[in-house]
Amino acid sequence: MTLTRLETDSLGSIEIPAERLWGPQTERARRLFNIGTERFPPVLIRAVGLHKWAAAEANRRLGEISGTVADAIAQAAEEIIAGERDEEFPLVVWQTGSGTQTNMCANEVISNRANQILGEPLGTRKPVHPNDHVNRGQSSNDNFPTMMHMAAAMLVSERTIPALLTLAARLEARAEDWAEIIKIARTHMMDAVPMTLAQEARTWALQARLGAERLREAMARLMPLAQGGTAAGTGLNSHPDFARVFAEIIAGRTGLPFRASENPFEGMAAHDALVELSGAMNTVAVSLNKIANDVRLLGSGPRAGIAELVIPADGLSSSIMPGKTNPTQSEALSMVCAQVMGNHVTVTIAGAQGHLQLNVFKPVIIQAVLQSARLIADAAESFAEHMVAKLEPNRRRIAENVAKSLMLVTALNPHIGYDKAVAIGKLALAEDITLREAAVRLGTLSGEAFDQWVRPEAMLAPGGDQAG
Amino acid sequence: MTLTRLETDSLGSIEIPAERLWGPQTERARRLFNIGTERFPPVLIRAVGLHKWAAAEANRRLGEISGTVADAIAQAAEEIIAGERDEEFPLVVWQTGSGTQTNMCANEVISNRANQILGEPLGTRKPVHPNDHVNRGQSSNDNFPTMMHMAAAMLVSERTIPALLTLAARLEARAEDWAEIIKIARTHMMDAVPMTLAQEARTWALQARLGAERLREAMARLMPLAQGGTAAGTGLNSHPDFARVFAEIIAGRTGLPFRASENPFEGMAAHDALVELSGAMNTVAVSLNKIANDVRLLGSGPRAGIAELVIPADGLSSSIMPGKTNPTQSEALSMVCAQVMGNHVTVTIAGAQGHLQLNVFKPVIIQAVLQSARLIADAAESFAEHMVAKLEPNRRRIAENVAKSLMLVTALNPHIGYDKAVAIGKLALAEDITLREAAVRLGTLSGEAFDQWVRPEAMLAPGGDQAG
Amino acid sequence: MTLTRLETDSLGSIEIPAERLWGPQTERARRLFNIGTERFPPVLIRAVGLHKWAAAEANRRLGEISGTVADAIAQAAEEIIAGERDEEFPLVVWQTGSGTQTNMCANEVISNRANQILGEPLGTRKPVHPNDHVNRGQSSNDNFPTMMHMAAAMLVSERTIPALLTLAARLEARAEDWAEIIKIARTHMMDAVPMTLAQEARTWALQARLGAERLREAMARLMPLAQGGTAAGTGLNSHPDFARVFAEIIAGRTGLPFRASENPFEGMAAHDALVELSGAMNTVAVSLNKIANDVRLLGSGPRAGIAELVIPADGLSSSIMPGKTNPTQSEALSMVCAQVMGNHVTVTIAGAQGHLQLNVFKPVIIQAVLQSARLIADAAESFAEHMVAKLEPNRRRIAENVAKSLMLVTALNPHIGYDKAVAIGKLALAEDITLREAAVRLGTLSGEAFDQWVRPEAMLAPGGDQAG
Amino acid sequence: MTLTRLETDSLGSIEIPAERLWGPQTERARRLFNIGTERFPPVLIRAVGLHKWAAAEANRRLGEISGTVADAIAQAAEEIIAGERDEEFPLVVWQTGSGTQTNMCANEVISNRANQILGEPLGTRKPVHPNDHVNRGQSSNDNFPTMMHMAAAMLVSERTIPALLTLAARLEARAEDWAEIIKIARTHMMDAVPMTLAQEARTWALQARLGAERLREAMARLMPLAQGGTAAGTGLNSHPDFARVFAEIIAGRTGLPFRASENPFEGMAAHDALVELSGAMNTVAVSLNKIANDVRLLGSGPRAGIAELVIPADGLSSSIMPGKTNPTQSEALSMVCAQVMGNHVTVTIAGAQGHLQLNVFKPVIIQAVLQSARLIADAAESFAEHMVAKLEPNRRRIAENVAKSLMLVTALNPHIGYDKAVAIGKLALAEDITLREAAVRLGTLSGEAFDQWVRPEAMLAPGGDQAG
Repeated sequence: MTLTRLETDSLGSIEIPAERLWGPQTERARRLFNIGTERFPPVLIRAVGLHKWAAAEANRRLGEISGTVADAIAQAAEEIIAGERDEEFPLVVWQTGSGTQTNMCANEVISNRANQILGEPLGTRKPVHPNDHVNRGQSSNDNFPTMMHMAAAMLVSERTIPALLTLAARLEARAEDWAEIIKIARTHMMDAVPMTLAQEARTWALQARLGAERLREAMARLMPLAQGGTAAGTGLNSHPDFARVFAEIIAGRTGLPFRASENPFEGMAAHDALVELSGAMNTVAVSLNKIANDVRLLGSGPRAGIAELVIPADGLSSSIMPGKTNPTQSEALSMVCAQVMGNHVTVTIAGAQGHLQLNVFKPVIIQAVLQSARLIADAAESFAEHMVAKLEPNRRRIAENVAKSLMLVTALNPHIGYDKAVAIGKLALAEDITLREAAVRLGTLSGEAFDQWVRPEAMLAPGGDQAG
Repeated sequence: MTLTRLETDSLGSIEIPAERLWGPQTERARRLFNIGTERFPPVLIRAVGLHKWAAAEANRRLGEISGTVADAIAQAAEEIIAGERDEEFPLVVWQTGSGTQTNMCANEVISNRANQILGEPLGTRKPVHPNDHVNRGQSSNDNFPTMMHMAAAMLVSERTIPALLTLAARLEARAEDWAEIIKIARTHMMDAVPMTLAQEARTWALQARLGAERLREAMARLMPLAQGGTAAGTGLNSHPDFARVFAEIIAGRTGLPFRASENPFEGMAAHDALVELSGAMNTVAVSLNKIANDVRLLGSGPRAGIAELVIPADGLSSSIMPGKTNPTQSEALSMVCAQVMGNHVTVTIAGAQGHLQLNVFKPVIIQAVLQSARLIADAAESFAEHMVAKLEPNRRRIAENVAKSLMLVTALNPHIGYDKAVAIGKLALAEDITLREAAVRLGTLSGEAFDQWVRPEAMLAPGGDQAG
Repeated sequence: MTLTRLETDSLGSIEIPAERLWGPQTERARRLFNIGTERFPPVLIRAVGLHKWAAAEANRRLGEISGTVADAIAQAAEEIIAGERDEEFPLVVWQTGSGTQTNMCANEVISNRANQILGEPLGTRKPVHPNDHVNRGQSSNDNFPTMMHMAAAMLVSERTIPALLTLAARLEARAEDWAEIIKIARTHMMDAVPMTLAQEARTWALQARLGAERLREAMARLMPLAQGGTAAGTGLNSHPDFARVFAEIIAGRTGLPFRASENPFEGMAAHDALVELSGAMNTVAVSLNKIANDVRLLGSGPRAGIAELVIPADGLSSSIMPGKTNPTQSEALSMVCAQVMGNHVTVTIAGAQGHLQLNVFKPVIIQAVLQSARLIADAAESFAEHMVAKLEPNRRRIAENVAKSLMLVTALNPHIGYDKAVAIGKLALAEDITLREAAVRLGTLSGEAFDQWVRPEAMLAPGGDQAG
Repeated sequence: MTLTRLETDSLGSIEIPAERLWGPQTERARRLFNIGTERFPPVLIRAVGLHKWAAAEANRRLGEISGTVADAIAQAAEEIIAGERDEEFPLVVWQTGSGTQTNMCANEVISNRANQILGEPLGTRKPVHPNDHVNRGQSSNDNFPTMMHMAAAMLVSERTIPALLTLAARLEARAEDWAEIIKIARTHMMDAVPMTLAQEARTWALQARLGAERLREAMARLMPLAQGGTAAGTGLNSHPDFARVFAEIIAGRTGLPFRASENPFEGMAAHDALVELSGAMNTVAVSLNKIANDVRLLGSGPRAGIAELVIPADGLSSSIMPGKTNPTQSEALSMVCAQVMGNHVTVTIAGAQGHLQLNVFKPVIIQAVLQSARLIADAAESFAEHMVAKLEPNRRRIAENVAKSLMLVTALNPHIGYDKAVAIGKLALAEDITLREAAVRLGTLSGEAFDQWVRPEAMLAPGGDQAG
């Protein structure tokens, strides 16, 4: 039997588990939204704690609440920031679309905990009141979007961007290792002209690096905070300096250049900045999917595939085919990409359906954005460490593929013209002979001329210079 | 300090938490896939247990494994089915794309537990071997897709379809309550001709009911099981009767008409059946989004909106605007719809990228499908109970809106022609007078004729009959 | 200089190109919606013509319009059905969301043409009036969705389903050709156990065949027509028998089992049936993308790829690499699939945002649905004819791949157990020797036993039977 | 009967319509890709012409082709740039995924036209050869992605960004008109606290303005051109200075800061820059959908809706409801948004599936991107002109709504605390009395205090200042 305490709010009284810090609004919401199991991730709860801490600090500086109240709120908020109160946030994502219940949960937990710190029992609503003090100068409508921007910016800057740069660096290191390896390029998946394995790896690295750049640019639009708009954007009931002071405090503690939005209406009625960030992550997913696929393709085999790369034996195997090695990290990464792309559609649909002064898809938007940011970070790091770092080129196969490629004939275009080059290539393919043999048999050019003009190592850059 | 035991597999030895039932494959996977926090939902773990139980039973009947081994496996599997071993499935969704690690985890947990039941210590791999006995006649490539079909079919039939029917029934009950209420229809969101509130509610109900029908039809394609294909679809190493016997056992226990696929290749290389099911749920989400939005629109107000419906005061309020009531259930439901639509894109992208004999997006596909099915079920029930059941019509407002509507003029078309009806409507709008006044002023018809022809209660069906 | 005539409607007078049959509503819409260039495809215009012809016929039978008027309307409509009046439909898709302008354009064109047939000049609006006669008993709100269902059902049944069956038949014919060809299956893109090329082709065929079945089932929900609902679903101003008679006439002429919806509200307020159809086409796109990709993968080379299939030399080549053959049909098909998947999101978003009695995304929904249906039909036929029919197996490469595959070791599992089989496979890979050599060297079994148990031709079905 | 000429290429001879400038590659492609009707839009054909003109100029400067050949190519290309040769580009989008056929079509049309200019008959392939001269130093693999960047950048900078700024300016002008109008804000679609209509319009304007900024930033990543990579990225067969000189020429003529990519591999193997641009347009669509919806909501009525805005009577009406005015421009705009969001998924899927050195979804990517850019431009301008410019506030309704709003009670929070304010609001709602009456009846405060604290005009900014 769970012990309960009885609390009363405007709708009547309600029983709450005795030891829990939350109050009647949270308890009602728990019962009304019995939908799924998805809760906000830790970084959002951390942002909630940081927000309430900074709001108390700003209200104290502006004389809106007393030092005693502010201290108690700050102490309670720090426990949330430290991750010690996660179990006090029992609500699922599928709640009010403004995130009001999560904000009210924070207000209730903090006021109860603050009152507890000040020696009062739970549920008294004084001296620290959930609305009048913890939520002072705020509405869910402006503070929840502020928390959304904070959580997204913290996660992307702390985890997602660094992970992409780690992946890029790892790929660039492999390009160093592979600078001398000449291989056959493939266009339309068909054999094409020569390139180096380093060029291939550096192209993947550039995609990852540009991904980090895209995220950084999208982050810029997260810096304006809706805080200060209160109920509808006008800022009713907030101190004229609250938005500015709050943003300075948050910027100071997080090290991110947050600032008060010049038009808080925009950040409450719409979440275009998060749709944009999701779009940037969608582009990153497109890039990573390409990289995961390329590695899987080049690593296919070991004997009946392309087999130019040897994927690491990670100890995971088929449950039926003994000793089989699979590109498991490519698979995990590409599944993450599919999730991110789907999340982006969720965010797009949710972002597009805001009405008038409030978009009420806030919880699903931030949930999807944070999931995408976390998954990209984790999967990119995992891929870098468990796949990229351990890939090995199959030099023998790579060299064989270059030796027998028919597309080396391309190098003859400037010397004999496209049409004659076509004839050589077609004969070589039809007769299963070398290009050199075909060229000589057709009388188009001598074997010596062929040897001079068709040299893979001279086909790696414009004008024929060797490229790394 | 966690106690560990040392186990050895083909890649070498590895330390495993001493009390855990899983083995080296699971432990390696735990370390290699440190990506996100998403684990499979309980219904998938239940399907895993059911699968391994049925496979042991089939193997016993076919003489492939001994009764002793089969009994021990069955007992271990029943513990999983009962939900008692959830903590033994520590792996995230973002693993090998075939679900191999989750299958191997089941093989290891069950063989260890079975050996424990038979008096052996953990890690002996005998007398019950994870591959040779628990995975007997199977590959992850055929058993994981089988588990996917099982989990999806169980969840949709047990929860999603009934929830939609509950919602439909609740809406139909409200239509009974509201049969006599004549209101203004709205097309393009603009005032249109009269209808009844019952007609509106029954249309929502029909959408929900058709949604259940769509799910039922899509379910049909889940019935063929890939079990029997083993590694690549050919069925290598499986008993010729295994697929059939296994399917009969599963069908018997679940009550769902599962059967062995005639082409197990198809169910391993592609997951079109789950893409289709996701598409059906996407259509359901489209329907539910419409219903959630309509209720929110009609309930807007209480004073400056449409306000024809009074949404229930659920006790949840604004953190700043005292006493405000919001359509929170509409918001939760429409957020769920956005999630389902995004999940569908994830499933589509994942389904489209299978290669050759194996689609390796299995975990993300089933995760998204099961999330959608669960969320639709929960949110539809929540909306039915906490919103639909408690909606109240605002009869005064509804009647006022009918009385002043200009589109009642439509009823004159058959009598005076469209062009003259236009003139009446335009005059009434411009002068802010009633249609009757305008008609008389223009001399188009007499007041008596107007009264005879323009009667809302005669405008509810073709030919002017009253419709409910 | 274009000659014009002056026409007047309720908003005032407007100049219309003299020779054009359209009237002031169309002319106004042309000027107000100067957006893009996308017009409805011919099948939609055909459906418009069929609709107006059938409506005139129904109204004649029910005594709503005279025989003279009905004849003239029917004659004008037949010209539209025959495709002779396409230039009289100048409006883009991006118009009123109910399709009203396209319906009014039809009303104007037909009434003008009918009056012309009856010897009157253009613009008289009599004896045949666009609203009172051509649109008799109808609203755009019920007739445009009816036209949408008609066009989609005609196109899917006439083109899309047959094209998928053509593709399936072509693939099955190739399976006949390839029944004896044993090849290596690939899971995770890595070498796996043996199968036949026929099994592979039949799996693709099954996907195409199931696609046709999915479309047929989705078609069923297109059969109820919203016709009869008029402005808002109630059927105001329509004859009580109009919906039934109209549907019978349309069913008779098209041969499709259209019927009057029992709840026309649903077909006007929502387009779930078209969202569902789009979902079915999305599943088809997922299937076709897989097929296109598989062929491209197996055809990669000719020398440095998998190269088990030889893709046809279609005469199209690289602009720089002489003689290069590319899988151009796979590329066209997979681009079509990407379009269909994107269209499905468009349709989903458009379908989800209907409000109250009218979904006002009708034009974009039907445009996307018809584009998808047409593109799938054309691309599937093109792929069948220009790719599937001309593929050739590279028997030498296929045989080599089987001979050297390490996964044949799987056949030993039932004889020596999984763990010993792993050891053989790992030794063969590490030492680059055959499985047989590795088995003998390890002393696990004799060469004779190996030869008896490891036979690819006995690995194609459960229990070791040869499968085709 | 169409006259034809016979031309021969490496695959054999083929009949081409006599008067057409295209050659055998185009003719083969016409027959092989009989899929749909979608052709590239004029801006892409213009980019093709500009590209070939600039390439000829660069080759001339670098001594790669003679002045005579260069002049003839340039003259032919200018005809394409001027839009005079559109009919010579008969191919659909659904072709080879590299755009090779469209590039070869340009090569053939230009070489034939150049030879014609130089007095030779069609089909001679000299003195100007399609590959050796028109395609000199190029591959479809580098020049088609270059054309894609050019077309997208030209269209977005010439049309899309200006259109968004036009819409923003128009909205800002309306905000000027509406500065004094105090209205009720709505959150969760429910009545909230006061704001001004100007604040609402300026928020829409900001969304449009930020959209233009997002497009500008995404444009930056279009500036690096893949030109110079030739077949696979290495630049084989191109002059070392070709990429740089080409980019300078294009930048000079277009006025856009194009430059040679430092890693042309990236721009050929992936189209992340276009996926990013599509993502920016997706965000714009999300913004515009919100604006279109808000206007539609506020304009709902005229009598039974919110009716705070009067939407313009555009002369388009219902086909059955006489005189009905609908928000047709909102509908067209939101349909465009649905299309853009779907296109974005198409582009995402197409972008994610590139393999190795070449993404072969180029045609569908650029088609979708250009359609989105064009539609946003046209629809935003149309909405600005035909909707925003003509909206009128319904001042009487707006004032009534403010007067009766219950959420004015929010202003009492700082004075009496949240809990007492709740009680006042609930009593007013329950009894259908004013807030002032409820406050006095409850004895919470005097009527005078109420009048002093609850003044809408003092509720428009933090601290109570009037905001515009």
